[in-house]
Order: sequence, then structure tokens, then C-alpha cells
Amino acid sequence: MSSKPIEIGIVFFPGMTQLDVTGPFEVLARLPNARVHLLWKRIEPVISDVGLPVMPTTTFADCPDLDVFCIGGGPGMVSMMDDEEVISFVRAKGGSARYVTSVCAGSLILGAAGLITGYKSACHWLMRDMLSFFGAIGVDDRVVVDGNRISGGGVTAGIDFGLLVAAKLCGEDVAKRIQLFIEYQPEPPFNLTVQNAPPALLKEIRANSAGWLRLRQEAVDRAASKLGASDTAPV
Amino acid sequence: MSSKPIEIGIVFFPGMTQLDVTGPFEVLARLPNARVHLLWKRIEPVISDVGLPVMPTTTFADCPDLDVFCIGGGPGMVSMMDDEEVISFVRAKGGSARYVTSVCAGSLILGAAGLITGYKSACHWLMRDMLSFFGAIGVDDRVVVDGNRISGGGVTAGIDFGLLVAAKLCGEDVAKRIQLFIEYQPEPPFNLTVQNAPPALLKEIRANSAGWLRLRQEAVDRAASKLGASDTAPV
Repeated sequence: MSSKPIEIGIVFFPGMTQLDVTGPFEVLARLPNARVHLLWKRIEPVISDVGLPVMPTTTFADCPDLDVFCIGGGPGMVSMMDDEEVISFVRAKGGSARYVTSVCAGSLILGAAGLITGYKSACHWLMRDMLSFFGAIGVDDRVVVDGNRISGGGVTAGIDFGLLVAAKLCGEDVAKRIQLFIEYQPEPPFNLTVQNAPPALLKEIRANSAGWLRLRQEAVDRAASKLGASDTAPV
Repeated sequence: MSSKPIEIGIVFFPGMTQLDVTGPFEVLARLPNARVHLLWKRIEPVISDVGLPVMPTTTFADCPDLDVFCIGGGPGMVSMMDDEEVISFVRAKGGSARYVTSVCAGSLILGAAGLITGYKSACHWLMRDMLSFFGAIGVDDRVVVDGNRISGGGVTAGIDFGLLVAAKLCGEDVAKRIQLFIEYQPEPPFNLTVQNAPPALLKEIRANSAGWLRLRQEAVDRAASKLGASDTAPV
């Protein structure tokens, strides 16, 4: 086992929130003996929701069996949940991975692939309620571990998530050294969390997000409906 | 002023630590009316120190005058500090920006361009001492503001840095909403900081890093020597 690399796959998709996955990447790519595959259908620039172009390294077709499968969120998830090629890939390579993981609303894509039915999961606070449509249990924690399902909350939670996964894969000593190296001793400039924020502010943010939240809910509805159908059909 | 976009330039270079700049990018690209330019000599994939390929969006030649100039660190900085094209670009577009900024050891590249002489600056903890070779004053803070010079500490400090810059550019209300949206309410898994870590552990990390730290010190020495010479020569 010592010479066999740890195979880590992170899905890149158009319209993803890049920090969901570049945070964990920065941590996991520093593990000894790890190979991180940045996965997409083709090797072509993938543009994030707010304009960062990143390049995949491995096509879906060339993806090896994985120790860790990870997917993030972002507005592009609406298309991803409707995309049979993506969902089939998530189901196959995610479902067979030693750790099935997500950051932010990537948990909803795992949900659409039927991978977290009955599991507890984290999600971005604005979309956590949607997990129930896939039979998953939304939990308001920064990182949620349920069996071999590991999920991070919104966007920056990917760093906390990555360090926890690093500890599971290579031990706490390795993870601690990475935490020190990336100086993860954060000092958010504002004392403002989803838990302590004025309710009126959260309400306003929800109202301003209503348009894109509706699009995601509709995609969740479609995916949940398909999932129900496929539960009774041969896979 | 209201319709003129805020022009933000972030340098991409081979061998950079991608999270140094993808953290701030995630924050700053969400500002209303901001245009973020990902800058490199050419439009070609730029591979980070641990293997993330990212694509620049704007060549050095096409870079507009900037409101914010930002550069990060990573092992590639050794080549960057020796590269006259890069240093001239940093001096020109950084020196004329409204805010001259860095994350992690990017402050040493600003130093090599003569842009922080006499200024207080943050830096990755393993390289903070090197700032003095450029006449800058290393400060052990997460984010350091000195006039229009704003610098973040190591790697993940770029997120704290980004939120502070966001507040300066667009006000605290905007920055606070971004902090909530990216759920920046971190919970590092280990209670371990550069300040509270066992001295023996920090010493061991320094010893293990001695090889690459020496390469960076040598690059700093060469750059400081050139800077001294250019101080007396016409620019």
C-alpha cells in the first residue's frame, strides 16, 4: 500500500464556485503520495461563476478509481444536475470512492446522483433545505462526517474540510503541518456569521437571491424526480 | 466615477501558490462594478506549485491602469524576482495602482520591484525576515495596512485580506455580505498557530524547508543588489 498513490478526484465544471475546490486542492495536493485529478469531460478551460478560468487535468474517461471523490457547488450545478453524463460519472466514480465528499452546494449534486440518501450532510446555508429532496439530512456544521460521506459547508468551509480529509488520509501530524504551512489561523474582518447576523440582513440576502435559488430548487426537483424513477429502474 | 469599473489586477505566474490569489479573487470578483484581470506575459496555462493549471485573462501588454495590483507567492517567485520583464511590469502597474497589495511571500516580489521600501508589510511566516533586505518592515499580523500598501500573511490570509480590500473599495456593507455569502466563519480543525505551536515543531519545519528557503534568500539577495544599483541609475 505504501507505494500506491492516494487517488483524489475533484470535479471542475463551468459555473462552479472555484474556491469551493481550490481550497481543498491546496491542502490535498500537499499530501505525500497523493495524485489529484481535476476532472471534467474534456481538457478545456472551465470558467468559474465569477470568471476564473481553470484547466482540468484528467477527463472523465481517464479517471482512475478514487480514494477521494469531491465536488463543489456554484450556479453551474443547475446544468450539472440536468446532465446525465455528469450524474452518471458522479454516481460511478463517487459511489466507488473510499470517501464520497462535497463542499458547499456540491452536496446537492451528490444528492442528485443518489449518493447521500439517508446521510447527514453539510451545504451552503442558502441551500441546505434542498438536501431533504434527496432524502439527505442537512446539518448546520462547518464539516459533517457521516460514515464515509464527508461534506463541507459554504465556499470557505472547503479549507476546514480539506484539513480534516487530510488527517483521515495521512494522519493528524501531516494535516497539522499543512495547516501551519498555509497559515490557517483566520481572522475574519467582521464578527458576522450566519448564526449571529441580524435576521433582517439574512432575509434581505435571501430575497435578493430568490431568482437563482428558484432555478436551483427547480433543478433539484427535476433531479429528485429522476432519482425516484431510477430507483425502480435497472441502473 | 460610478460607471467607471474598478480595475483589479492579479498576477499569475508559474509555480505560484494558487490559494494566495484564488482566495482574494473569489472575494474581489464579487464586488459590484469590478473587473478582475488575471495577468501574465501570455495567455497560456499557468501551473501552480502543487499542480493547479489556471488561465490568465489579460496579458501584461493589455493590462489597463489599475485600482488594485495584487501578487502572491510560491516557489516560482525565485524566477520572478530574477525576471526583468516581470519586475518592470510589477514596478510600472503596481507602482501606479491606487492600492499596492500582496499576499504571502508576494510581498518579496513587491520588495524586489522597490515598491515597499520603508513600508510595513506582512509575509508568510517562514520568509518574513527577508523583507528587511528590501528595506521593508516585516509585521506579524494577518493583514497589514500601511498607507496604500496592503498585504496579507501566508496563503489563507488572502481571504481576510480580500475582505478588507473589498471594504476599502466598496464599503463594509458590501464586504460583510460577501463574508456571509462565502461563509467565512472558519473552524480550523487544529488549535495550532505559528504563535502557539511547539517551538520544536516550527524548528523542524524550518529545517525541512532549508533547501528552498536558501534558494529564495539567494533570489532576494540578487534582487536587493539590483535594486540598490537601479536606485542610482535612471529608471
